[in-house]
Amino acid sequence: MDKRALSEMGRGTSEPAISWLMRLTLDRPKLVSLAAGFTDNASLPLSATRSTLKDMLAGETRGRKALQYGTTQGDPELRRITARNLQKLDSRGFARQNKLGYAPEQVVVTNGSQQLLYLVTEALCDPGDIVLVEDPTYFVYLGIAQSHRLRCRTVPLESDGLNIKVLEQRLGELEQSGELGRVKLLYLVSYFQNPSGVTTSFEKKRAALALLKRFEAKAGHPIYLLEDAAYRELRFDERGVPSALATGSLADRVLYAGTYSKPFATGIRVGFGLVPPEVGEAVVRLKGNHDFGTSNFLQQLLLEAMVSGAYEHHLGGLRVRYQRKAEIMTRALDRHFPKSVTWQKPKGGLYVWVSLPRGVATGRTSRMFRAALKHDVLYVPGELCYADDPRRSKPNHQMRLSFGGASDSDIRLGVKRLGAILKSFCS
Amino acid sequence: MDKRALSEMGRGTSEPAISWLMRLTLDRPKLVSLAAGFTDNASLPLSATRSTLKDMLAGETRGRKALQYGTTQGDPELRRITARNLQKLDSRGFARQNKLGYAPEQVVVTNGSQQLLYLVTEALCDPGDIVLVEDPTYFVYLGIAQSHRLRCRTVPLESDGLNIKVLEQRLGELEQSGELGRVKLLYLVSYFQNPSGVTTSFEKKRAALALLKRFEAKAGHPIYLLEDAAYRELRFDERGVPSALATGSLADRVLYAGTYSKPFATGIRVGFGLVPPEVGEAVVRLKGNHDFGTSNFLQQLLLEAMVSGAYEHHLGGLRVRYQRKAEIMTRALDRHFPKSVTWQKPKGGLYVWVSLPRGVATGRTSRMFRAALKHDVLYVPGELCYADDPRRSKPNHQMRLSFGGASDSDIRLGVKRLGAILKSFCS
Repeated sequence: MDKRALSEMGRGTSEPAISWLMRLTLDRPKLVSLAAGFTDNASLPLSATRSTLKDMLAGETRGRKALQYGTTQGDPELRRITARNLQKLDSRGFARQNKLGYAPEQVVVTNGSQQLLYLVTEALCDPGDIVLVEDPTYFVYLGIAQSHRLRCRTVPLESDGLNIKVLEQRLGELEQSGELGRVKLLYLVSYFQNPSGVTTSFEKKRAALALLKRFEAKAGHPIYLLEDAAYRELRFDERGVPSALATGSLADRVLYAGTYSKPFATGIRVGFGLVPPEVGEAVVRLKGNHDFGTSNFLQQLLLEAMVSGAYEHHLGGLRVRYQRKAEIMTRALDRHFPKSVTWQKPKGGLYVWVSLPRGVATGRTSRMFRAALKHDVLYVPGELCYADDPRRSKPNHQMRLSFGGASDSDIRLGVKRLGAILKSFCS
Repeated sequence: MDKRALSEMGRGTSEPAISWLMRLTLDRPKLVSLAAGFTDNASLPLSATRSTLKDMLAGETRGRKALQYGTTQGDPELRRITARNLQKLDSRGFARQNKLGYAPEQVVVTNGSQQLLYLVTEALCDPGDIVLVEDPTYFVYLGIAQSHRLRCRTVPLESDGLNIKVLEQRLGELEQSGELGRVKLLYLVSYFQNPSGVTTSFEKKRAALALLKRFEAKAGHPIYLLEDAAYRELRFDERGVPSALATGSLADRVLYAGTYSKPFATGIRVGFGLVPPEVGEAVVRLKGNHDFGTSNFLQQLLLEAMVSGAYEHHLGGLRVRYQRKAEIMTRALDRHFPKSVTWQKPKGGLYVWVSLPRGVATGRTSRMFRAALKHDVLYVPGELCYADDPRRSKPNHQMRLSFGGASDSDIRLGVKRLGAILKSFCS
């Protein structure tokens, strides 16, 4: 292939991990994939979608509206409901409700929350700029960073979110090295993190924002907190942590990314951002060039489902379902995995993050990964979730398991197969 | 607004013309817009969509599939049908059918053809690179070029497509100035061009490709023909010009962009590209970072409509409808516009391109544009459709009128209002 005409980005963008992971599943009919972050087929809201569409398309005016172009920023009513719901979510378990920062004018509707991550990164970051990320973090965001030739600086993750002391230390180092002016954002997957399952406490979000603000004067520009809340709705219990938008005077530095796809149906890709005006203006301009607006049909479908209550009803069932599947997975882990292996019981999301003894490699080229494939079970090698950071070597002894896509029996079977392999490697 | 954190692109991207044009329509309930490139509401396939969705969601397996994630490149069956249809379209009126270049593997499904234009530009062009464009051309593509800090070089448009002699001259000049290495593509809106309505002849596409190939050796890399065929299906008669994909050995430099939105429903945003492997690989990687795939639900909907014949049936009706509306518009133009004003009767697409006597300005800041707004009629100022090119001054005496979105009576009313204004300016 003659790649000489490609741009730096066209030539320099790596193949996303998700692509080669998916290729591995082809031609392996017996493979049990614990890798994919899918929702499971049986949980998809077929009858709810049928009745929602029937209602939406019943009347001429409403029906035709759904078939027509919308605006680049997104349907005004969907943006209004989005802002209101966020405010409601944030006021739960958080006494001082804050009205600032929940304006429909600040909401932009995107093709999944993924596109929002792309657009804000494009709007903020030039090649060579620095983004601060959790260690580990969502590997598709690392793909965006790699493609844009950004540098990642990592902050270790603890059981309640990133290590604030290390964040302060990193910012101090960057100030020392004169690179603070290149720091544009801190990326957090704040709820049931992909891959670790960790939820960041509200106190840590506030502390992180306060730190970023403190260093802004020396940076010469705002430093944003990009809060990826893709898994927020997939919590198993009722008590939710407020988002960084609830931090009052600090919220003007929050870029909030959410999605309606995972809580309803992944085939219906609609996400959103709630971002400050200076970023929002740029994001909407860029989106005008990308696609001048997310499919209005999908937006109207979700709006209809939200107004009728079908969305919330489905989500309620989904929470129960995933909690049960998480339970099936952790029970199987208890039963089949060796004692030297650790994990946390998930409280939401789709993942269990498994740590093996250091020295037992799980990576793409490891003997373990090949053995797993040979025995028809697939996991996500933990190393994929670590950014390139010259300041530490990449951990290579973990795996991300998903209980989302696989059936109950496949979860059991997959864990059993993996357990047998692990035992042979960890003994 | 504190824009200091924005990237060069975030800061440097202009507001798309479409945004401020749309803003002008707000709070003007009596405004007749001949500006929007919409399809009209009454033409939208409400009952066809209802029955298509009913069929698609009737069975469990098929229904659930539509609600699940697809792949980044797009549904394999939709890609197969797309490739086959293109080949069929190209073999009509073109004796030597060429099998090369119509492979499903080369098709990528995107969020409207707009996203394909964005992705190939991102994959090929670095800031400062040069794109060759028709003069005039599609203004949203000029937005993509502006945002990526590309330089445009213009080639005048004749009644059967771009002026090939001038294209050769431009390439020669760029060779002379040592800038040929920066030339990445020639962008053509080849069917019923937006804004001019011109269709490029097959001979001119072939000649353009041959010229690009001739200069490749000196450029040091391939130079592509980006064929934007967004309006191809909206032709009024049966005879169609083959695409540049039908040029045999030259077709390996063709990037073909098509859409299923305009021929069916604009709210259902699905487009596609058929591109050579070296570009396709980069495009799919980039799309993995953008959104990892166009909504599978929309893809399955279109697939269902294509297989059932609902798509083709609707399109047949749409052709008749638009032909009639084009007729209404040109009759009104005959009746109300002064004799010093010229236009061509459209053979497809959505637009009539109107030229006033030189010296009668139509631009955004012109007295004419303000007078039109005052009398509640909106057109697209012709100047928006001309690239910034230091080698010529921008024509400012034209307007793009669309017969797509407005009702029959609004077309008549809008043209009548404009005619009265034009008469006062052109006399």
